[in-house]
Amino acid sequence: MALILTFLGKNGTARTKIAIASAMKLAREGKRVLLAGSAEPAMQILLNTTLSADAQEISPNLYAVQFQAAVLLERSWDEVKKLEAQYLKTPILKDVYGQELAVLPGMDTALALNAIRQYEESGKYDAIIYDGTGDTTTLRMLGMPESLSWYVRRFRQLFVNSDLGKGISESPFIQPLVSTFFNVNWTADNFSQPTNMANNMLDRGKEALANPKRVAAFLVTADDQIEIATARYLWGSAQQVGLTIGGVILESAIADANLSEQFAPLPISTVVGTNSAIASSEEWQKIIDGLPDFVTQASQAPRPIEIDVNARQVRLFLPGFDKKQVKLTQYGPEVTIEAGDQRRNILLPPALSGKQVTGAKFQNGYLIISF
Amino acid sequence: MALILTFLGKNGTARTKIAIASAMKLAREGKRVLLAGSAEPAMQILLNTTLSADAQEISPNLYAVQFQAAVLLERSWDEVKKLEAQYLKTPILKDVYGQELAVLPGMDTALALNAIRQYEESGKYDAIIYDGTGDTTTLRMLGMPESLSWYVRRFRQLFVNSDLGKGISESPFIQPLVSTFFNVNWTADNFSQPTNMANNMLDRGKEALANPKRVAAFLVTADDQIEIATARYLWGSAQQVGLTIGGVILESAIADANLSEQFAPLPISTVVGTNSAIASSEEWQKIIDGLPDFVTQASQAPRPIEIDVNARQVRLFLPGFDKKQVKLTQYGPEVTIEAGDQRRNILLPPALSGKQVTGAKFQNGYLIISF
Repeated sequence: MALILTFLGKNGTARTKIAIASAMKLAREGKRVLLAGSAEPAMQILLNTTLSADAQEISPNLYAVQFQAAVLLERSWDEVKKLEAQYLKTPILKDVYGQELAVLPGMDTALALNAIRQYEESGKYDAIIYDGTGDTTTLRMLGMPESLSWYVRRFRQLFVNSDLGKGISESPFIQPLVSTFFNVNWTADNFSQPTNMANNMLDRGKEALANPKRVAAFLVTADDQIEIATARYLWGSAQQVGLTIGGVILESAIADANLSEQFAPLPISTVVGTNSAIASSEEWQKIIDGLPDFVTQASQAPRPIEIDVNARQVRLFLPGFDKKQVKLTQYGPEVTIEAGDQRRNILLPPALSGKQVTGAKFQNGYLIISF
Repeated sequence: MALILTFLGKNGTARTKIAIASAMKLAREGKRVLLAGSAEPAMQILLNTTLSADAQEISPNLYAVQFQAAVLLERSWDEVKKLEAQYLKTPILKDVYGQELAVLPGMDTALALNAIRQYEESGKYDAIIYDGTGDTTTLRMLGMPESLSWYVRRFRQLFVNSDLGKGISESPFIQPLVSTFFNVNWTADNFSQPTNMANNMLDRGKEALANPKRVAAFLVTADDQIEIATARYLWGSAQQVGLTIGGVILESAIADANLSEQFAPLPISTVVGTNSAIASSEEWQKIIDGLPDFVTQASQAPRPIEIDVNARQVRLFLPGFDKKQVKLTQYGPEVTIEAGDQRRNILLPPALSGKQVTGAKFQNGYLIISF
């Protein structure tokens, strides 16, 4: 199992530098590290190397790859066609080539997450450092297993119970028709097979995200009003997708900036910034020296969610927000929390599931919900 | 018709400053301006105002709004339910509340584009300044009308011609079943009704994007290796989605930086940067004074695509790439160009449609394709 590490913050170049230095640090500790960035040029310039869509070793134990959405989409297409061929008697998509497919919004994110999953499952790496957009988009990506599994459980049930769903699975007229076109009977049971397959994958994703020794993010900021506000906003928003923030990395020309009040209880590591794009090996060493022990810090950081079945309480860590910025509703079958432009539906354990909320208070950065 | 303007570049704070100053400039010229940003805090800090998901007037003629995906999704949900009710006899989605919906990757972008469209159609604004992520994600957003309409035309035809599609529209057994569940008959003709509705909307989007007096972007960069490389990369990538780049705005402490070689033939406007988050009105004025005349520059900039039916040539402007970074293929029914992690399928006029490519050359930043 690989450690998956990413960085959030306003300054893209600083984040990419920290990501590279982190990859170097872990590689020198003997770990097999994959450094994954986007197709934009910053990482190539900082590494002074041409990267491609395939992982390449750039120094001992250190591999780098560029997530190119167009290439990843092309490669995933054959999987989609295989899946279609399993279900449809005469596949439709066989005549569409991966090399034609345009990239739609959201695909970058979904494809990058899928690529990380595949690299993780390959067993070839002890750590994957993902240098993404470092903003809400990265949070949407890491929140995908949870948000998608909500859509699957909510809409699957609605469909199965609907006239249309019942008609399809029960009508004596539909089954023979279905078998003309599909390789499977379309009963509620068979319909659940692909959703279960998807659910298993999403469950594995949620499990990884819930474990700070497997997935963690660190905030990168300078001592600057906008950067600090953005880092705090992303800190709170990260909790909404269940992502543990392990600590803060302060990039500063001077070592005495004090941000502990804004980010308590997170530890702050100071890295002496370098302004030049191509850092010398001494400069990289200085950045590496300032980096924290990621796994230790992540393990000790506040967890996004704690469920106490005995006390009938759910505690959500939501730092950086005040009471007015957090909305709690119970429209659907689950409890919904809205904050940081994220909406989270809390899947409760059976003991609390379906219960009405009896009280909620916002205290020391925690939203405490009682049932 | 409103002018839609956005900024691309590596430095987010600089981009937001330029966006605000541009909105101020146009508002002072008497235009009704909407400034639209994301839910992250930078714009609020720079404006020293609290923004919400509804447009508010922050100074004469100048309105500001925060695109909050969670709120926009909630508001669009009723439209989705209405659409479902038109087609399905017993709607399934009526029991799902907008307030429950989690935001998935890509939704931010699609919802922001939809919001821009609605503000544009409201007729209330002469200009909409969109302060987005300023990177590939913004390009995916503006490229959506074109890439989506490719998916619609490519997959619709495949479906209509497939056994499944033919079965549904021709089978005497299916029609009565369809009418049990749906308000419409599912013939190929009726199936085309919603796709035509979608196509009309996408066509209007493509039309707007193709007109530099309606949609244009400007590059924002400092005199820094990574920022320049990123701006050049985004310049080339923007052409792939059909977005006109009108010029470069150089944020610089000194006025004598010379980037004309890297960005020729684009004009470069120099803005004297301010480092403080909250600029004084004098500092805003200094930024405003450095800004170009957006519409004039955009109208004179190279167009992303020129089709010459008589010469049987298509000329694609692809600055910042070399020959090896551009891939031309003809797998499907259209000509596909891959560059800058974007794949573009060129919809040719009838005179050239379906013709084989007879030659291609890369010259002075143009890919010239002959048929």
